[in-house]
Amino acid sequence: MTSVRIQTVLYDGAEEQDFTGPVAVFGIVEDIAHSYVTAEGARTVTTNSGIEMIVRGAWSPGDADVIVVPGGGYGDGSGVSEQIRRRTLPDALAGARRPGLVVASVCTGTLLLAAAGLTTGRPCTTHHVALDDLRAMGGEAVPGRVVDDGDLVTSGGVTSGLDLGLWLVERFFGPDAALQAEMVLEYERRGTVRRTTRSQAPVHPAPDPR
Amino acid sequence: MTSVRIQTVLYDGAEEQDFTGPVAVFGIVEDIAHSYVTAEGARTVTTNSGIEMIVRGAWSPGDADVIVVPGGGYGDGSGVSEQIRRRTLPDALAGARRPGLVVASVCTGTLLLAAAGLTTGRPCTTHHVALDDLRAMGGEAVPGRVVDDGDLVTSGGVTSGLDLGLWLVERFFGPDAALQAEMVLEYERRGTVRRTTRSQAPVHPAPDPR
Repeated sequence: MTSVRIQTVLYDGAEEQDFTGPVAVFGIVEDIAHSYVTAEGARTVTTNSGIEMIVRGAWSPGDADVIVVPGGGYGDGSGVSEQIRRRTLPDALAGARRPGLVVASVCTGTLLLAAAGLTTGRPCTTHHVALDDLRAMGGEAVPGRVVDDGDLVTSGGVTSGLDLGLWLVERFFGPDAALQAEMVLEYERRGTVRRTTRSQAPVHPAPDPR
Repeated sequence: MTSVRIQTVLYDGAEEQDFTGPVAVFGIVEDIAHSYVTAEGARTVTTNSGIEMIVRGAWSPGDADVIVVPGGGYGDGSGVSEQIRRRTLPDALAGARRPGLVVASVCTGTLLLAAAGLTTGRPCTTHHVALDDLRAMGGEAVPGRVVDDGDLVTSGGVTSGLDLGLWLVERFFGPDAALQAEMVLEYERRGTVRRTTRSQAPVHPAPDPR
């Protein structure tokens, strides 16, 4: 099994639960190489609850198979809103596009993808309070805790990140790996994944059908 | 409504999902003052997935109404196991006991409470792989994602921290506050809380019965 390289993009105001959910899932799967990055390279990021995190990862989307973008701070003009105004992160995401790269988001992280032009005319979702804004930015907001449109995989509010992580593990490694993560996390993936015709899942068939 | 002061204790190897779950809940409730501390005072903590967190909070359990202890790293001899060997954190927790202080744990964080003597002969829970060890350390392990024994409130594996946070909010502020947090987090508390005769909930009745 080829290792899957996943990068989580952090920024000031990112909501911890948005990214720790999927990262907790990824940490259980041996064949996932996970790292944190920022669009500006190594720096200290202050997250939504005031955690100061030293992020050492350079911006290197060419080294990623999956990029995960959390949300956070949308309601109060910080976090996602600030990143949209500054443009650095959306522009970096727009520039990262390449065949085979999966871009995923949790919660209002989808609005950062929208600001990057990645959701225009495509089925996607976000936190329920931001659905209208997502539509206004050109995304085709649809129901579902997880919406898989192939190289664009988005998820709903905050805890939906757990479901996103489990779905990505199922898609790349099959249901056995996802079930193992569920057991360790004492959590079962919630809701039907909205798979579109672009959805390539499963990319890898489940190993060793028994 | 009096503000409730909650401190989350961090240490090297703490599992991010264990503490970000309850902290995400607490962050939604205006009358909760939350801070991170370590048993050794201000320092940089490296969490389970390798996040380097700058924790500025001094050890000050006298300023807390609730102390939350996450788990992490138990299986590989680091994290909780290392803290039990070093004794600093268990001893600090043992010394923090006072009437009115609620000590809570997520996942294998309960084993740190056990090492502090806080679970001896008392109903409690932990991650399912650690239940036998908890019993061997004197805890009366019982089923339930959340076990409320009054000034000792423990929870099961990893994602049970979300349920712990929601239960503590319900206990201190009533169901309306917990429901508000559920809506924001797009999560509904799972499982029946195992309340014992020591459980004081609800400490505060729900405000303004309508």
